[in-house]
Amino acid sequence: MLIARSAVRLTHAQAMRRAIELAASPDVPLWPNPRVGCVLLSKRGTVIAEGYHRGAGTPHAEADALNQAGERARGAIAIVTLEPCNHTGRTGPCAQRLIDAGVSRVLYAQSDPNPIASGGAETLRAAGIEVESGLLAEESRAVNRVWSRATELQRPYVTWKFATTLDGRSAAADGTSRWISNAAARRDTHVRRAECDVIMVGTNTVAVDDPSLTVRDADDLPAAVQPLRVVVGERALPVHAKVFDDAAPTLVMATHDPAMVLEHLWRMEKRHVFLEGGPTLAAAFAAAGLIDEIVTYVAPMLLGAGRNAVADLGISTIADALRPTVVDIAIIESADEQPCVRLVMETS
Amino acid sequence: MLIARSAVRLTHAQAMRRAIELAASPDVPLWPNPRVGCVLLSKRGTVIAEGYHRGAGTPHAEADALNQAGERARGAIAIVTLEPCNHTGRTGPCAQRLIDAGVSRVLYAQSDPNPIASGGAETLRAAGIEVESGLLAEESRAVNRVWSRATELQRPYVTWKFATTLDGRSAAADGTSRWISNAAARRDTHVRRAECDVIMVGTNTVAVDDPSLTVRDADDLPAAVQPLRVVVGERALPVHAKVFDDAAPTLVMATHDPAMVLEHLWRMEKRHVFLEGGPTLAAAFAAAGLIDEIVTYVAPMLLGAGRNAVADLGISTIADALRPTVVDIAIIESADEQPCVRLVMETS
Repeated sequence: MLIARSAVRLTHAQAMRRAIELAASPDVPLWPNPRVGCVLLSKRGTVIAEGYHRGAGTPHAEADALNQAGERARGAIAIVTLEPCNHTGRTGPCAQRLIDAGVSRVLYAQSDPNPIASGGAETLRAAGIEVESGLLAEESRAVNRVWSRATELQRPYVTWKFATTLDGRSAAADGTSRWISNAAARRDTHVRRAECDVIMVGTNTVAVDDPSLTVRDADDLPAAVQPLRVVVGERALPVHAKVFDDAAPTLVMATHDPAMVLEHLWRMEKRHVFLEGGPTLAAAFAAAGLIDEIVTYVAPMLLGAGRNAVADLGISTIADALRPTVVDIAIIESADEQPCVRLVMETS
Repeated sequence: MLIARSAVRLTHAQAMRRAIELAASPDVPLWPNPRVGCVLLSKRGTVIAEGYHRGAGTPHAEADALNQAGERARGAIAIVTLEPCNHTGRTGPCAQRLIDAGVSRVLYAQSDPNPIASGGAETLRAAGIEVESGLLAEESRAVNRVWSRATELQRPYVTWKFATTLDGRSAAADGTSRWISNAAARRDTHVRRAECDVIMVGTNTVAVDDPSLTVRDADDLPAAVQPLRVVVGERALPVHAKVFDDAAPTLVMATHDPAMVLEHLWRMEKRHVFLEGGPTLAAAFAAAGLIDEIVTYVAPMLLGAGRNAVADLGISTIADALRPTVVDIAIIESADEQPCVRLVMETS
């Protein structure tokens, strides 16, 4: 079958597109590592081997491809979606693996987003390997959108989610809030929770709303992998709170400092926080400039009074309003219910 | 040319569709009268004459068609979008005109929505004319959507419009509010104002925001026809307020009673109120059940504090939330600005 395959010659762009496809394989987790794909091409442009990274502790994409190629890697061109790493983590550095295998050229799409450059490209060049970068860089980055931003910032990426009535309320005056949004919007929330490795709320939300903070599937069954539940704040927590059940691990952080919270989670290798409130905790993150993305479900409902969906942000004049960039607006239809509008916005 | 025309035979449904087309002629004002079309068919199904009503003081659709047909109307079938009137207003009753002209049958789509039936159909039947109704009734009603509802209610139809940030604010804490929505949304508001015969605000809005409340076109020039500006409330008004300029007539109503306001405007033959706030006046209308339609522009902006877009509605629990029926959701794109979301909702 390798013979049949080698009949096809790929351009470097075609090979990179294939590497991106491999990186985005659906079986690969979104965190904590970047998703990376690699294609080894012969000088004639035929595919020698393909590889991709399948998650923390497994071989990196380059190693995966080199393992398959063996001696055939000598003189080959390595097409990789991300700059080869230069450090010894759970596995050895990829730059050294590529040198040892005798590849002649390395083409990578996205540079290592770590602000302290990893030096993979330099190591390769120092060994006499021809190195090029930037081909389909944007597409490659999109595969690791959140991981890339988190790595640049050296802290977890924060998505703030809230549901609101048309008049900015998250609950009625008596505290009732079931439901503001519709069933499809709540389902959508579970899909988004599943893409994160942390679900975060304030102690007040636990005390008042007692949420489960688990990921459930379309049949309302718990997902196999659950994000870490993180409860932030200093209000006392009822011992029978649902966040203390065994559906998922829970971390309580008795602090009001968002930066400290993120620093700790980053050290735990957490990459993507789904911040679900309450308003006070979210406002603390917003005021500290620590929100990267906002997902809002607007329900066509008016309360006229009740709990504000968004707490005081320290903004007193319209010129200072928080104006995140809208990246998506969608109408969330739900059977036998009113539609909601979902807005996805980025703050930078 | 009549000979060429009479070669075509129309079914009753085709004739009614043509009558609806005539009713909806773009040169006909939306108020205070209904828009009505009429087609006179021979027994063979050929068109004898067409007519439509061109606004208050001009002949009704039936009279318009009969005037053209003259003696040829004898024995004809009159296809009308609305039940022929039975009362003498600025013009004579249409039922009598149809009897006098000697038509053999009358088919109308929509029954007179006046809760005290006008009796046009009865008068026709008493004179021995065959009468049928209901053909394309919904389409005919749609041509006079607002007029029909206002006539049923015997008060002007009320459209409440407001712009809001994602968190339910209409101004920042210091009162600044220019702009919450984008330029395209403000343009859209002018188009909607132009469909109404009253633009209404509270005295507080005049005192604080000093709006012009005029209809301006895409070039920001005043439209030829301006709705009546109505200011409701008891707060003192600055004499140099823009609503007192000569751009449009203005009525000040020193009351807090929404029902009384609408009763008065109905007697003035006003059919469609565009209620633009403030929140207190709108809340008074909502609490009195006197809002028929809500148009909301949601801007992707957060203030965290400031003036609430919607005032207290007397609602204390989620089950009592005002849940108008969504009839349209649109994304309002604006060059070089963030998009807004426009929701149109009906309360009944």
